[in-house]
Amino acid sequence: MKVSIVESILSANDEIALQNKQMLDAHGIYAINILAAPGGGKTSLILRTIDALRHRLRIAVIEGDVASTVDADLVATKGVPVVQINTGGQCHLEAQMVRRALGQLPLADIDLLLIENVGNLICPVEFKLGEDLNVMLTSVPEGDDKPYKYPGIFVAVDAVVINKIDLLPYVRFDIDAFRKLVLGMNPDVKIFEVSCETGQGIDDWAEWVAYQRERKR
Amino acid sequence: MKVSIVESILSANDEIALQNKQMLDAHGIYAINILAAPGGGKTSLILRTIDALRHRLRIAVIEGDVASTVDADLVATKGVPVVQINTGGQCHLEAQMVRRALGQLPLADIDLLLIENVGNLICPVEFKLGEDLNVMLTSVPEGDDKPYKYPGIFVAVDAVVINKIDLLPYVRFDIDAFRKLVLGMNPDVKIFEVSCETGQGIDDWAEWVAYQRERKR
Repeated sequence: MKVSIVESILSANDEIALQNKQMLDAHGIYAINILAAPGGGKTSLILRTIDALRHRLRIAVIEGDVASTVDADLVATKGVPVVQINTGGQCHLEAQMVRRALGQLPLADIDLLLIENVGNLICPVEFKLGEDLNVMLTSVPEGDDKPYKYPGIFVAVDAVVINKIDLLPYVRFDIDAFRKLVLGMNPDVKIFEVSCETGQGIDDWAEWVAYQRERKR
Repeated sequence: MKVSIVESILSANDEIALQNKQMLDAHGIYAINILAAPGGGKTSLILRTIDALRHRLRIAVIEGDVASTVDADLVATKGVPVVQINTGGQCHLEAQMVRRALGQLPLADIDLLLIENVGNLICPVEFKLGEDLNVMLTSVPEGDDKPYKYPGIFVAVDAVVINKIDLLPYVRFDIDAFRKLVLGMNPDVKIFEVSCETGQGIDDWAEWVAYQRERKR
């Protein structure tokens, strides 16, 4: 009984996600769903990506949080269209929330849509939003054992961005072991090492994003 | 319809939590539910707390994770009783999981039970387990804006432990502003500053835990 209810919520979500995808495709918008634990640096990655790509792509952002407009306020300082979704306690974004947010964005004037999901390594994984790519951000201070504990997200994503590499001298994090572990679980995943604080590695990441979008067109 | 199902799941959970509490009380066991984002340092705090209090309290641990026994293996090196719960995808511990774990612990020989919840700032808050205290761990690299984004957990807990203060020189985190924000939301909350890496602040935290337990007896 409980399982069948969950399944029907998921399949209703997937249907709306498909509609979102069709709407985004019709406007030539490439969409990335960004997942991470709280404090991993999702908003910082979005700010860095805007700086790196704004000269050649028109970017918009959807910010997902349980509460507050802290992140959307930050993104708005970059002068790009941004919509904040407050889930009001819900632990993940759902496709219908994104559909409502799309209604508030100038779809004809967007090339790349960055969606920041709620900070959570578990619940968002099940809910498609209409995105082209799923990217997971993990950060060095969180430790290199996360793939053991949250395997679902590492298996599901197209790319893993290791953030806060500027803190590597101060914490225990074995990047080579981490890479090997993640690739063992998801051989096709692309892994980036960045610092959103210093900017290190951002160019490689941004080039890859631009290339993924170009390849789809 | 959906709401009433959620409510009935919660009330069934609360009933089992109450039974857990009665069972723990009957054995004179003081139980702490430890909540944090992934990688905040819950296991490290448990290891430090064992070292600080093992000469005067008999300690046991329940480890909650989506997958793996990484944390329980670490705790076991301390020679205290430990049970690993794998939720298999579930984003929080529930009272019935804890009840099963209690069945595997030598209840007559335990004074203090430390329960590590699944790494998640949202979902575990709603689910009582039978604990005496709820403690939230937040860590400096996560940033000082978490109370804005995850207000529910900051309001619900009895104590907030700020971990990884050894990283304060390397990241932006305004401890005074953070304290003020948290106390504004939850005036009775106790706040600790610790580094599970260096041991700084652990004595204060451990003394408080011991005192809370003593006060209840």
